[in-house]
Amino acid sequence: MEAMTFDILARSARSSARVGRLTTPHGSLGTPAFMPVGTRGSVKGLLPSLIAATGSQIVLANTYHLLLRPGSDLVSALGGLHRFMGWPGPILTDSGGYQAFSMADANQIDEDGVTFRSEVDGSNVRLTPEIATQVQNRLGADIIMAFDDCPPARDPEGGQDDGEYARRLRLAIERTRRWARRCVDAHERPAEQALFGIVQGGTDLVLREQSARDVCGLDLPGYAIGGVAVGEGPEQIQRVVVHTAALLPEDRPRYLMGVGYEADIVGAVLAGVDMFDCVLPTRNGRNATAFTAAGQIRLRNSRFRDDAGPIEAGCDCHACDPAAHAWATPGGVGGLGGGALSRAYIRHLFMAREMLGPILVSLHNVRYFQRLMLDIARTIREDDWLGLARRWPVVADVVRRRIGSGSDRHQPTGASDRSGQG
Amino acid sequence: MEAMTFDILARSARSSARVGRLTTPHGSLGTPAFMPVGTRGSVKGLLPSLIAATGSQIVLANTYHLLLRPGSDLVSALGGLHRFMGWPGPILTDSGGYQAFSMADANQIDEDGVTFRSEVDGSNVRLTPEIATQVQNRLGADIIMAFDDCPPARDPEGGQDDGEYARRLRLAIERTRRWARRCVDAHERPAEQALFGIVQGGTDLVLREQSARDVCGLDLPGYAIGGVAVGEGPEQIQRVVVHTAALLPEDRPRYLMGVGYEADIVGAVLAGVDMFDCVLPTRNGRNATAFTAAGQIRLRNSRFRDDAGPIEAGCDCHACDPAAHAWATPGGVGGLGGGALSRAYIRHLFMAREMLGPILVSLHNVRYFQRLMLDIARTIREDDWLGLARRWPVVADVVRRRIGSGSDRHQPTGASDRSGQG
Repeated sequence: MEAMTFDILARSARSSARVGRLTTPHGSLGTPAFMPVGTRGSVKGLLPSLIAATGSQIVLANTYHLLLRPGSDLVSALGGLHRFMGWPGPILTDSGGYQAFSMADANQIDEDGVTFRSEVDGSNVRLTPEIATQVQNRLGADIIMAFDDCPPARDPEGGQDDGEYARRLRLAIERTRRWARRCVDAHERPAEQALFGIVQGGTDLVLREQSARDVCGLDLPGYAIGGVAVGEGPEQIQRVVVHTAALLPEDRPRYLMGVGYEADIVGAVLAGVDMFDCVLPTRNGRNATAFTAAGQIRLRNSRFRDDAGPIEAGCDCHACDPAAHAWATPGGVGGLGGGALSRAYIRHLFMAREMLGPILVSLHNVRYFQRLMLDIARTIREDDWLGLARRWPVVADVVRRRIGSGSDRHQPTGASDRSGQG
Repeated sequence: MEAMTFDILARSARSSARVGRLTTPHGSLGTPAFMPVGTRGSVKGLLPSLIAATGSQIVLANTYHLLLRPGSDLVSALGGLHRFMGWPGPILTDSGGYQAFSMADANQIDEDGVTFRSEVDGSNVRLTPEIATQVQNRLGADIIMAFDDCPPARDPEGGQDDGEYARRLRLAIERTRRWARRCVDAHERPAEQALFGIVQGGTDLVLREQSARDVCGLDLPGYAIGGVAVGEGPEQIQRVVVHTAALLPEDRPRYLMGVGYEADIVGAVLAGVDMFDCVLPTRNGRNATAFTAAGQIRLRNSRFRDDAGPIEAGCDCHACDPAAHAWATPGGVGGLGGGALSRAYIRHLFMAREMLGPILVSLHNVRYFQRLMLDIARTIREDDWLGLARRWPVVADVVRRRIGSGSDRHQPTGASDRSGQG
């Protein structure tokens, strides 16, 4: 029995984009999918029922943060992550590698793994491929990620020269290959949790090719593109994603880690990517920045002081259209509707430092990304990319560049047909 | 046409408690009622739909805070407070008097009103009976409060002697009488907003009697007991409330302002009080303190580290019983249930400083108070106070003292029968 199945339901003839359905032990989800980030076992400010109300079908949680607090043993003893955080649908956990390398005070990196100081209690914490896999086995997410070597992005101000950086990237893909193998060997719940491999290689396309060959050789249920959006610009992101996605087997879900803005997502979907996660909707939401199809707006701005309109006309989120959401009322006021909450009200909440401001804009932003994903799926089925560009001006440029040029036309990648593998 | 009607539906034979229904232009509510506090136009952390899901039927908002920010003109221009905060049900606003006297740097108090410094921008702000009424007319709540003179509680460390304090209390009730008259005269929307009078007098029962006579002489649609729970102990609260409630007309709703703990509420209900508001459920919720029928628990405590149980067994709030709440999902995951969120998870959220911790415990606490109110209404109908005491150990003492002694048996107060007044 496999932990996951992936069925492709529709394809774009004008690009590599596809619509799929990914089925996990905790339910299925349509792709292309956007995963809101629940770093510490909570999508910031959102009850599980509200996450569901945004149309989110899968959430991401961070192994690194949960390992430090409250610990995977505790989560496991309490029945696993789904039960712990009250999210009965699919969950993906990252491996902790990215945070261990980039956020922590990593004081020892060697072939075996990484040792870093806990930001919670200052203790030394060790992560190796085996430990990262065991921790994820205990957390119990439906999709778990291989522990990879994630070198920080090159610091243009740092002393690292081109050669040093190239050597570091090469070491990273070699370690990522060896570590992925160790994760496969350590994985104790393959029938319940799908382990995804990660392709590294920075912006070096030759290294990306090598890394993709390495990791795809492990015949895993899904593959991720890592080490993207770590400081490079949108053109570099697209260049790497287009090149790398085509190297990954056609019949497995492709996941672009930590990306991103709407145009990045549409560009990656055109290249055949199926899954995305990003903190932008909630992080920007907490900062009063709302996404709209015409671009982000900063709701603290005084021009919204007396703006009676919703964050975005036509949106069906809890802030823009409360009446679209049934009010669950055990014994209380029921069925009350009410019009949109105004930009002026939301600005007021932020000025008054009311928690409800971040909650409302986070809700709007997550729903915004889910509306975009739904429209992308429709666009793939109809292959009408200019329609998408009209409805979402923020993605018009990338659509024009990529569909106009025809450079992303679907090409069979020669990847193995998994259906023959039982 | 009147802005409000109040019907008494059931009475306790063993006390002055009653079950009623209060009907406003924005819907009706059952009494005894608990009003969660939405100081700045938001019950902290709770979407309007979630406030409704707690069974709350009316919310309170603070005139003082809304006057300073965003201002009553803006709220009025945006369609009034109901629309502004997305709460289509009944709303009550206080007059701002309490905050102007106690919280602000009140630099001038005279017969005309109070001038204080704005905590928002440092400007001088003036509140008089006329201004407070006009501001509340603009905010547009269903129930508005007279602007009263609220002297701070006597500071036992301060230089004020008994005589000075007594003179201040007497001045307060006299001003409160004169100011209430001015509020009545200034009130521009009596057909849409019910103006309640406020009885002052501190812990001096003779002054309370005088103040009740004064204010009831204005024949208002409802009356409040103010100046309670400003530092005195629970016995003093009960003494003042029992004495004062009996002075208020039987056929009008009685509102005990800013109270309080469960036992305070039950004690006041036994004395014939119908309405309550308090910040405790949300303030304590933000501080990880959860109400349970057996007493408050502090969820940051390490003993809850691995506690798999809900905050309170048998509770039907979003935290204790998510499955009780329909998940509204436009196009997303629907109908997912899920078990209780554990005390261990909620402790983790607080340790990790996740917003969801305060949200969940606030939701639980507000629902806890609403469950108490529902059980109080049932208890009044059945006159089974020992049953209430068994189900809610936190109120057992007050029930035993008050019902055991029989001192609160219902006595007609001789108040005017409003039905004859058209």
